[in-house]
Amino acid sequence: MLTATEIQKIINQRIESLSFPATPADLYDPIQYILSLGGKRLRPTLTLMACNLFSDEVELAIEPALGIELFHNFTLLHDDIMDKADKRRGHLTVHRKWNENVAILSGDAMQIEAYRHISLTSVANLPRVLARFSQTAIEVCEGQQIDMDFEKRCEVPEEDYLEMIRLKTAVLVAASLQIGAWMGGATEQEAGLLYDFGSSLGLAFQLQDDLLDVYGDAKTFGKNIGGDIVSNKKTFLLILAMNSATGSIKESLLRWIKEPVVNPEEKIKAVTEIYDTLGIGSICKKQIASFHEKAFVAFDKLGLPLSRKQILIDYVSALMQRQT
Amino acid sequence: MLTATEIQKIINQRIESLSFPATPADLYDPIQYILSLGGKRLRPTLTLMACNLFSDEVELAIEPALGIELFHNFTLLHDDIMDKADKRRGHLTVHRKWNENVAILSGDAMQIEAYRHISLTSVANLPRVLARFSQTAIEVCEGQQIDMDFEKRCEVPEEDYLEMIRLKTAVLVAASLQIGAWMGGATEQEAGLLYDFGSSLGLAFQLQDDLLDVYGDAKTFGKNIGGDIVSNKKTFLLILAMNSATGSIKESLLRWIKEPVVNPEEKIKAVTEIYDTLGIGSICKKQIASFHEKAFVAFDKLGLPLSRKQILIDYVSALMQRQT
Repeated sequence: MLTATEIQKIINQRIESLSFPATPADLYDPIQYILSLGGKRLRPTLTLMACNLFSDEVELAIEPALGIELFHNFTLLHDDIMDKADKRRGHLTVHRKWNENVAILSGDAMQIEAYRHISLTSVANLPRVLARFSQTAIEVCEGQQIDMDFEKRCEVPEEDYLEMIRLKTAVLVAASLQIGAWMGGATEQEAGLLYDFGSSLGLAFQLQDDLLDVYGDAKTFGKNIGGDIVSNKKTFLLILAMNSATGSIKESLLRWIKEPVVNPEEKIKAVTEIYDTLGIGSICKKQIASFHEKAFVAFDKLGLPLSRKQILIDYVSALMQRQT
Repeated sequence: MLTATEIQKIINQRIESLSFPATPADLYDPIQYILSLGGKRLRPTLTLMACNLFSDEVELAIEPALGIELFHNFTLLHDDIMDKADKRRGHLTVHRKWNENVAILSGDAMQIEAYRHISLTSVANLPRVLARFSQTAIEVCEGQQIDMDFEKRCEVPEEDYLEMIRLKTAVLVAASLQIGAWMGGATEQEAGLLYDFGSSLGLAFQLQDDLLDVYGDAKTFGKNIGGDIVSNKKTFLLILAMNSATGSIKESLLRWIKEPVVNPEEKIKAVTEIYDTLGIGSICKKQIASFHEKAFVAFDKLGLPLSRKQILIDYVSALMQRQT
């Protein structure tokens, strides 16, 4: 079996060696650019690890793994246009570095490139991998649309928010694991358990992102602490606070949301204090722990020796403990 | 064998019965909307006709035919954003009726829906249909990028323009025919001849569109005559004129292009007169005839009885003689 480091080395080498035509430059350069910005490569790592649970040949799963990573980066590229984001991983977003038309079209091309790699799946697995990939891709679009719809709403029930992040984030983590399992020769039941594992894990990861934006360690967290607070982003924390605050606390929260930001630090401090008063951090942590546990209930049902499962357990545990 | 009318009835019924979830409405309504605007359904018609050349079961090709039509409509949806077009087939474009974010995301979803139908191709044909579809889709993106690049250039060599429209338009017509042929059981050589036939045909169609914008019959032509002239669109006619005009004619043409449009009718009349003086219409007609001939050189190599080929010949001939 391969270690996490060995798997990530394979993935990074394959991503670096992806080659695109030199022209038209404005179509292909943005694809190379966004791929060069790095990232944890979480999804393809999970695909290869899931494959490795059942087979010693992780190469079996490399093409769908690349397709999934290309698709994920395509969604970042287009989401950044829709969110009018200036930066991605510390660098200019594609629509800022080039322009919006370039970002739209190179994103479209990137989605096609994703399907090209998915299509290189062995014929025996091709129909189910394609069906799962397309179903997942359309769910990710649904999640993004629902997320944008939430921005126009004052209050969002917690279960609606969890369903949104399930679609926008969790299903792709789930599919990454299920597809990897299929490629390694898992049974439908085993692959289904890995899908369930990934779905709960994806929810836990996203809630942890929401939490770290407020309670993360500024030194190690990749983004500025409080960015979501400043931009009024509807995170799980803000939604919990909006739904549980009453009286003067609710009034204060609404005021911070509605008024233009004069002093970002002051706003971050004030809203964090509201979260503290309402115990939002601990409610969020409990929800994360609950998804984490649910993930491992599914994972534990896999009838594989612990020695085969340990690498994946360690990788996921490290991610759950990250402060960045 | 089915007549063109019968084939188009099948296609329209299948497109009308495509059903999408009710929510999120802003993701799926624009897909239903753009499909409801109609159009000739040229590409899926060619797919089924190509299938019908080799098999009496056109149903064999219906899924890839739908996938190709969905993909074509997706490109229109995103191209309209990039071109800042207000109208499409007499109705508001998606980004005008909704907004740009909705147009980007529903377009992304539509591309996934296209792949979903392509993926329903029978397993025996799936790898080559997927490969051809993705190769074609990426070429269409290349064509769109090159087209946008041309807008920034003063002069474009004719061969560069022809290569652009080959990518942007002709390859999808070619792939529609090739894929249909495969689904009907054609040999690789037969399917290849249909690809070549479609490629030349697609070039002829696009040049005819360029020609009809200037010399079409205003009563029957779907758009206003001279629209491309008013907007300085780099059509084959304008490119031919820019490359062949000299002296005072060139100066006059450049003036019409550079000056803001005060009176559109006056501009259309003046530029059309320049085209007349330079004989642009007849050069364009000769080029169309040459592609038409090249198309039928490929088609004639198909060793099929004329009785099987007649429906496709008649359909294509009617399209070539259209004034609309």
